[in-house]
Amino acid sequence: MSSVLITGGAGFLGQRLTRQLLERGFLAGPDGHPRAIDRIVLADVVAAPATTDPRVVNLVGDVADPAFAARIVDIDTTSIFHLAAIVSGMAEADFDLGMRINVDASRLLLDVSRGLGHQPTFVFASSIAVYGGELPSEVLPTTALKPQTSYGTQKAIVELLVGDYSRRGFVDGRALRLPTISVRPGKPNAAASGFISGIIREPLNGETAVCPVDPETRVCILSPSRAIDCLIAGHDVPARTLGTDRTVNLPGLSVTIGEMVAALERVAGSEVGGRIRWAREPKIERMVSGWPGRWDATRARDLGFPGDDSIDAIIRAHIAETQRA
Amino acid sequence: MSSVLITGGAGFLGQRLTRQLLERGFLAGPDGHPRAIDRIVLADVVAAPATTDPRVVNLVGDVADPAFAARIVDIDTTSIFHLAAIVSGMAEADFDLGMRINVDASRLLLDVSRGLGHQPTFVFASSIAVYGGELPSEVLPTTALKPQTSYGTQKAIVELLVGDYSRRGFVDGRALRLPTISVRPGKPNAAASGFISGIIREPLNGETAVCPVDPETRVCILSPSRAIDCLIAGHDVPARTLGTDRTVNLPGLSVTIGEMVAALERVAGSEVGGRIRWAREPKIERMVSGWPGRWDATRARDLGFPGDDSIDAIIRAHIAETQRA
Repeated sequence: MSSVLITGGAGFLGQRLTRQLLERGFLAGPDGHPRAIDRIVLADVVAAPATTDPRVVNLVGDVADPAFAARIVDIDTTSIFHLAAIVSGMAEADFDLGMRINVDASRLLLDVSRGLGHQPTFVFASSIAVYGGELPSEVLPTTALKPQTSYGTQKAIVELLVGDYSRRGFVDGRALRLPTISVRPGKPNAAASGFISGIIREPLNGETAVCPVDPETRVCILSPSRAIDCLIAGHDVPARTLGTDRTVNLPGLSVTIGEMVAALERVAGSEVGGRIRWAREPKIERMVSGWPGRWDATRARDLGFPGDDSIDAIIRAHIAETQRA
Repeated sequence: MSSVLITGGAGFLGQRLTRQLLERGFLAGPDGHPRAIDRIVLADVVAAPATTDPRVVNLVGDVADPAFAARIVDIDTTSIFHLAAIVSGMAEADFDLGMRINVDASRLLLDVSRGLGHQPTFVFASSIAVYGGELPSEVLPTTALKPQTSYGTQKAIVELLVGDYSRRGFVDGRALRLPTISVRPGKPNAAASGFISGIIREPLNGETAVCPVDPETRVCILSPSRAIDCLIAGHDVPARTLGTDRTVNLPGLSVTIGEMVAALERVAGSEVGGRIRWAREPKIERMVSGWPGRWDATRARDLGFPGDDSIDAIIRAHIAETQRA
């Protein structure tokens, strides 16, 4: 029996990951061979959309609640994708909530996993926001973390825990640093980076998007479908290949906001590209400009994690997905 | 009313710090001007030696216990030196104890301090053990932390908290990374680095010391008296001078174990130097060789933190202090 837990399972990434895992039907086992997925437990604070697939179990609750954590992990749990998080803007607005979900719930989940005794694979969705302060023009895996947000601090703390829990053999952990995901579908969320999707998504919907930063601002992005591929690749990479360093900077496309808008015009026309209003917001500007605009993802590419080819391709894929949906 | 809290106040550094603060009589206030110390609260799991100084209050308890934390910090608390910790060897042997004291108690103390509302100065004794893994021959402040021990992981987590609590204005924090302290007086403790004092202290006492690492092993050390000077300097440096980066690598003398033994022979004679038995212990060797043997402390020196001049001077100072005691 092989059971996969996805926290934040009702969320955008959680739902996409679920669909892909159901389609794929397997994940790598400890021996590296494919192991069929018998069950996927989706744990979230809101119910995930109903599905007819008998493998899916929806559990609604608070991941920071020990009783709930004990319910969502059981002896059959072989893999955990820990995606549940309070996003950057909200963790900045409500410090205690961020600590509770981003740190305490993560540690609780690591401890429950440790209690299983069989070292489940623990994939933690970390973030580019662990970096901050004065950074080199290209961030390297050897660059020190100086997070300038509570969200980044909280993610960095859990990375450290994932590293130590793995070193001690409590779990087989992998902390994957996600670049900013763009283009996210759906409604804007409270992430400070939300506009990096909004400036593509809203104009394509015929709506005006407000861009709170300068066009010269450089960001590091990853499309939703490549992000899901990376989460699965991060699960399947053998422990011995990863070695002691359990943190991976995922491949990110380095683009300026201006280049994103230019690509939108190329792909969808100047009328669509014209639906952006520029209104700088110093608070968001400060947070976003503190994150790396470019990082070295050689290790991720060597490990077989896929990235995006171009911003044009990302926008085209978003349009195709929206039309299918 | 200005009250100073020292956790781990009964310990070796806590006691030395207490003596020096009593003698000095003041610490810098938020305006940078000296502020008289009216009270020093020593909190520890064992009672500190009795003193006749009316300014000293001894409180015995568990720093991870919220009731005790609420007792040792009060509205008059202006400065906190958080020295209480589970040492490296013990945190490796008992993971949960290390997490409880090194992480949970630190966070509790940060939260109690935050509750005061007046941003007390919070000096956290961090450690060189936050570094690990593949390191450059000289570690820089920009070098990423890859701790290879639970102790180092736990110290790194609290550094992140001190940074974020300071950024948010909850406390005025300073995380000072201590090199290995040598020569510690007294009995050996459970720190993996204990022998780095033992190979000097025991031979001078006429006893044999066992050295568990190769003479070529390079370590980064700081004498007890300079460590105390650095803790006080770390308290007194103005917040605006520190800026957003609240972590400082203290000055460390880079020496090999062989150079330490050679200096012992120079200072105390070959008979004393001959009282070392070499017996490699892979577990200790692994932990110690994972820590930097050399790091760049330019920032600390620019901030006025004093270091040691030579290993000979450190040994001579130890001998002089032992004779005075």
